[in-house]
Amino acid sequence: MGSPTPPKAIITAAVTGAIHTPTMSPYLPLTPEQLIDDIMSVYDAGGAVAHLHVRDPETGQPKADQEIFREVAAEVKRRCDIVLCTTTGGSLGDTVENRAKVVSSLEPELASLNAGSLNFALFHVVPKYEGLWKHEWEKQYLAGTDDFIFPNTFYTIGEFTELMSRYGTKPEFEIYDVGMINNLAYLINSGQIQTPVYLQFVLGILGGIPATVENLVYLVQTARQQIGDFEWSVCAAGRAQFAMTTHALLMGGHARVGLEDNLYLEKGVLAKSSGEQVAKLKRIAGELGVETATPAEARRILGLKGLDKVNF
Amino acid sequence: MGSPTPPKAIITAAVTGAIHTPTMSPYLPLTPEQLIDDIMSVYDAGGAVAHLHVRDPETGQPKADQEIFREVAAEVKRRCDIVLCTTTGGSLGDTVENRAKVVSSLEPELASLNAGSLNFALFHVVPKYEGLWKHEWEKQYLAGTDDFIFPNTFYTIGEFTELMSRYGTKPEFEIYDVGMINNLAYLINSGQIQTPVYLQFVLGILGGIPATVENLVYLVQTARQQIGDFEWSVCAAGRAQFAMTTHALLMGGHARVGLEDNLYLEKGVLAKSSGEQVAKLKRIAGELGVETATPAEARRILGLKGLDKVNF
Amino acid sequence: MGSPTPPKAIITAAVTGAIHTPTMSPYLPLTPEQLIDDIMSVYDAGGAVAHLHVRDPETGQPKADQEIFREVAAEVKRRCDIVLCTTTGGSLGDTVENRAKVVSSLEPELASLNAGSLNFALFHVVPKYEGLWKHEWEKQYLAGTDDFIFPNTFYTIGEFTELMSRYGTKPEFEIYDVGMINNLAYLINSGQIQTPVYLQFVLGILGGIPATVENLVYLVQTARQQIGDFEWSVCAAGRAQFAMTTHALLMGGHARVGLEDNLYLEKGVLAKSSGEQVAKLKRIAGELGVETATPAEARRILGLKGLDKVNF
Amino acid sequence: MGSPTPPKAIITAAVTGAIHTPTMSPYLPLTPEQLIDDIMSVYDAGGAVAHLHVRDPETGQPKADQEIFREVAAEVKRRCDIVLCTTTGGSLGDTVENRAKVVSSLEPELASLNAGSLNFALFHVVPKYEGLWKHEWEKQYLAGTDDFIFPNTFYTIGEFTELMSRYGTKPEFEIYDVGMINNLAYLINSGQIQTPVYLQFVLGILGGIPATVENLVYLVQTARQQIGDFEWSVCAAGRAQFAMTTHALLMGGHARVGLEDNLYLEKGVLAKSSGEQVAKLKRIAGELGVETATPAEARRILGLKGLDKVNF
Repeated sequence: MGSPTPPKAIITAAVTGAIHTPTMSPYLPLTPEQLIDDIMSVYDAGGAVAHLHVRDPETGQPKADQEIFREVAAEVKRRCDIVLCTTTGGSLGDTVENRAKVVSSLEPELASLNAGSLNFALFHVVPKYEGLWKHEWEKQYLAGTDDFIFPNTFYTIGEFTELMSRYGTKPEFEIYDVGMINNLAYLINSGQIQTPVYLQFVLGILGGIPATVENLVYLVQTARQQIGDFEWSVCAAGRAQFAMTTHALLMGGHARVGLEDNLYLEKGVLAKSSGEQVAKLKRIAGELGVETATPAEARRILGLKGLDKVNF
Repeated sequence: MGSPTPPKAIITAAVTGAIHTPTMSPYLPLTPEQLIDDIMSVYDAGGAVAHLHVRDPETGQPKADQEIFREVAAEVKRRCDIVLCTTTGGSLGDTVENRAKVVSSLEPELASLNAGSLNFALFHVVPKYEGLWKHEWEKQYLAGTDDFIFPNTFYTIGEFTELMSRYGTKPEFEIYDVGMINNLAYLINSGQIQTPVYLQFVLGILGGIPATVENLVYLVQTARQQIGDFEWSVCAAGRAQFAMTTHALLMGGHARVGLEDNLYLEKGVLAKSSGEQVAKLKRIAGELGVETATPAEARRILGLKGLDKVNF
Repeated sequence: MGSPTPPKAIITAAVTGAIHTPTMSPYLPLTPEQLIDDIMSVYDAGGAVAHLHVRDPETGQPKADQEIFREVAAEVKRRCDIVLCTTTGGSLGDTVENRAKVVSSLEPELASLNAGSLNFALFHVVPKYEGLWKHEWEKQYLAGTDDFIFPNTFYTIGEFTELMSRYGTKPEFEIYDVGMINNLAYLINSGQIQTPVYLQFVLGILGGIPATVENLVYLVQTARQQIGDFEWSVCAAGRAQFAMTTHALLMGGHARVGLEDNLYLEKGVLAKSSGEQVAKLKRIAGELGVETATPAEARRILGLKGLDKVNF
Repeated sequence: MGSPTPPKAIITAAVTGAIHTPTMSPYLPLTPEQLIDDIMSVYDAGGAVAHLHVRDPETGQPKADQEIFREVAAEVKRRCDIVLCTTTGGSLGDTVENRAKVVSSLEPELASLNAGSLNFALFHVVPKYEGLWKHEWEKQYLAGTDDFIFPNTFYTIGEFTELMSRYGTKPEFEIYDVGMINNLAYLINSGQIQTPVYLQFVLGILGGIPATVENLVYLVQTARQQIGDFEWSVCAAGRAQFAMTTHALLMGGHARVGLEDNLYLEKGVLAKSSGEQVAKLKRIAGELGVETATPAEARRILGLKGLDKVNF
């Protein structure tokens, strides 16, 4: 493995996600306009991919609204050539059917595909915000995760895989623990998933594998042994974001930042945009001699169909 | 870590479980009498703990029937002092409430407590038995696991922990992947789980971490770093059973065999009882200079309340 | 990596070495007759390879005496087809030139080739035998290792490699620490060593890497990453012998036992021959479903030139 | 382990060493004045420790000249409070006696102590500089390392340890491979080395362990298991310098840069001083939220006797 400098590292930013809530940061993009602005900040800072969830513009609650997906995607496409990676994770508790719609609707180049089920817990952050809630739904949404499982059965994975295959959408497989690599290896060996795959190691979710360099190294080693060649990226929840993404860049991987994963730019300082985080990671990459990919280069590295083949 | 010889290694046998079905082996114990016989074979071969699920005596379908639990437990207690570890995993699709009943009913010394949620897939074995099914339910039960999640949320884990605490039942935490160690570390740090804990690493379930020595070593290392001191055992699905349990004995761990995990004694030879597997592991332990614990020694090692304090 | 069952595992026995001294065990073979008997015990027990050092028959001191090498090798060849792997490690303090002679003299099928330099310390065992020494040289020989380095520079390795290449002798590379894998990778990449290579991981020498399963797993993983395909075996000093060789068999490796590495059969019981240790490992292999190779099969696995091409 | 931010990270710079030669960079400090300037550049950039070898001012050849050691140390002490860590590795081929003199002469606060023997090879860089040599000695010095062992037997380690103990000099143990951690563990357990120890993992020397993040993680894990609590730093030969030191800062370790280890600031750009490398690592540390230690803070972290107790 070693620490080869990759030809180019892809910086992705996940701009809003379904984990953080409006109370936590005034900079979390909620409306279509804010989402578009945040994605443009990513593009301007040198990010190659934006990972997209959408929210109810009134309440900021995560919600897979197809019209908003389309509105944001179309406007971003009008302005720049950044790669859009739509979520199929949806919001907590969303149906699989609803999570899948964005693929058939927008026919994106890239979409997330969660590679297994796990407890996905956010309840432990509730005490930090008691008395500060801006919206009613927030506390319940977060607190309820003590009894929540993020459901991605083999059947679900198979359905998503077929759907993406039909629309030429490349899956970005979200890996939350070691066993999920084996899930993919099983599906590859049984012919249900085509290689080469693109893996996103998601570290630090309570319920999944923690964000440590040991775990990152072990995940990459395990994937090498079970899957062979693949592209991989890492993202990490909270304050481990820059540590883990820096480790990844030094290991020849790609990296994801953004307000979905971490609201801060440094200790005690909220990031004003996902672009600020991209700019910071670009500076670190620069110091370490790691070149970053343009959207066009990211398309070549990941083998994407191209922006002319999406339906938005 | 090294390879210290532990004072004594506890051999557990899981006699029937909820994974294998009657078609797969004529030796899988299904009725109360068969379960009692199999547990006695374990005891006679030198096993210290029997892990117990029960089944519908007519069809062999896994079913948390409290009367059968009591019947088997009481008769085994009448005959010998083996430790009984009742499942709280239940059968696939069982409710949490139903899974918990055996604790309040029997007040056992030891019970399993699954430390997280995961896809728990058995569907891939279906083709092997096509045309051979003895019972109608079997194929559907197994095939349906392509859309099955074994649900053990933080809330569920908390409920089970409290319940076991109330009845003096020691939890045996079933760990199916690396992140579940962190689940426990979180619950220990927040005061919900008392130390020292007893961990059972369950390897080789499709959906969880595969059965390799690398994974076993990594799980033990991770637990050392996150939890500190603890007792641990390993079990592994299918043909990796003796490889993984032998590795564990050499690493200072305890080991679980039994027909729940593996129906074979060696390649192509079905085990006629869980006791046969215990006897084999005892021979291996003997060759390797690992002494095995009696039920009384197992009680001391795990800190159990004693057979006089159960309610059966 | 996993735990695949290899087609066949090669059991080697190192019958006398240059580490143990006559005081330590009456069963350590010292004379040509004793060496021949011990090798035959290995063959009779099912060993495929015997690793050979020779000693001064009067004092039992390790000494690369070419006549004794020839006498033992020729008689063993007369009696059976076991593979002989001659040492090029010699005794402590021997010259490189002297260590090499056995290759040009006997033109063996297989010979050890130490892949780097390290402190090679035996001084710490001296206190155990104080007052018991049978020969004057023993204490000094052992105690002097506190200032001893086993010298195997890149130049030396190159000389040995060339010599063995000239005589069709396959090198068995002795790996005492992680960096030595890189030594080989460097020599392979620069064209000085031909692949596939055969590695012997030597664990537990004070000065080298300790005998733990973590270290064994790490060495194998590292070699996979740096060298690719290769055959490998493990041996371990002292009481870790059976633990490490059992781990190796379960990991798809080959295994070396013998009185060079460990004088005991089990705790407190001296082995009466290397064959006793081979027989024990064969029993363990049998329990674990690992088949062992005949000498003919070992020749095919390692790609040896054949017994008809040696010069003894 | 995780990725905790340490209270403060110590940045060390090794200013000249005994590996690089004058031909390789015009910025390599050779004379006392150049050494003093380079150390001051380290201090000015925020380095807390300077690791010091000296050279023949005429030829630039490494040479443990006590007068030069004293001249440099005294002048640096006159100008600032940076910690000086004198080498006891000396130049290639130097005697142990000669390597030790600097300790009894200067009675420094900190000195390197190499924890084992290994091939220490530089010969592979010779082709890069053919035809460019500035001094006669350079090629031979480098090429001769194909037959060179860096000798640090247990006896030598013991002698150095005693000597440093006598003068209140804290040893910085140089670890070149996994087995050397065990060397220290042996010496700690036998009472010859006092804890807590300070370890410098030296990665990427041909003959030792390569500079990869896997190896760094494994060394730290192994030391945790064998030694318990300790302070550690990392340095890496050549282009891996900033990758490995950045990994280390993120893992809670200290870090060493400097022209001894790497002549470049970035790809194709020679560093004009060790201070330039320190400044760069400080920028990276700053981006990653890692605070660096002043010399006074480094003294507290490492438990040094103080600049008022040295003999220069």
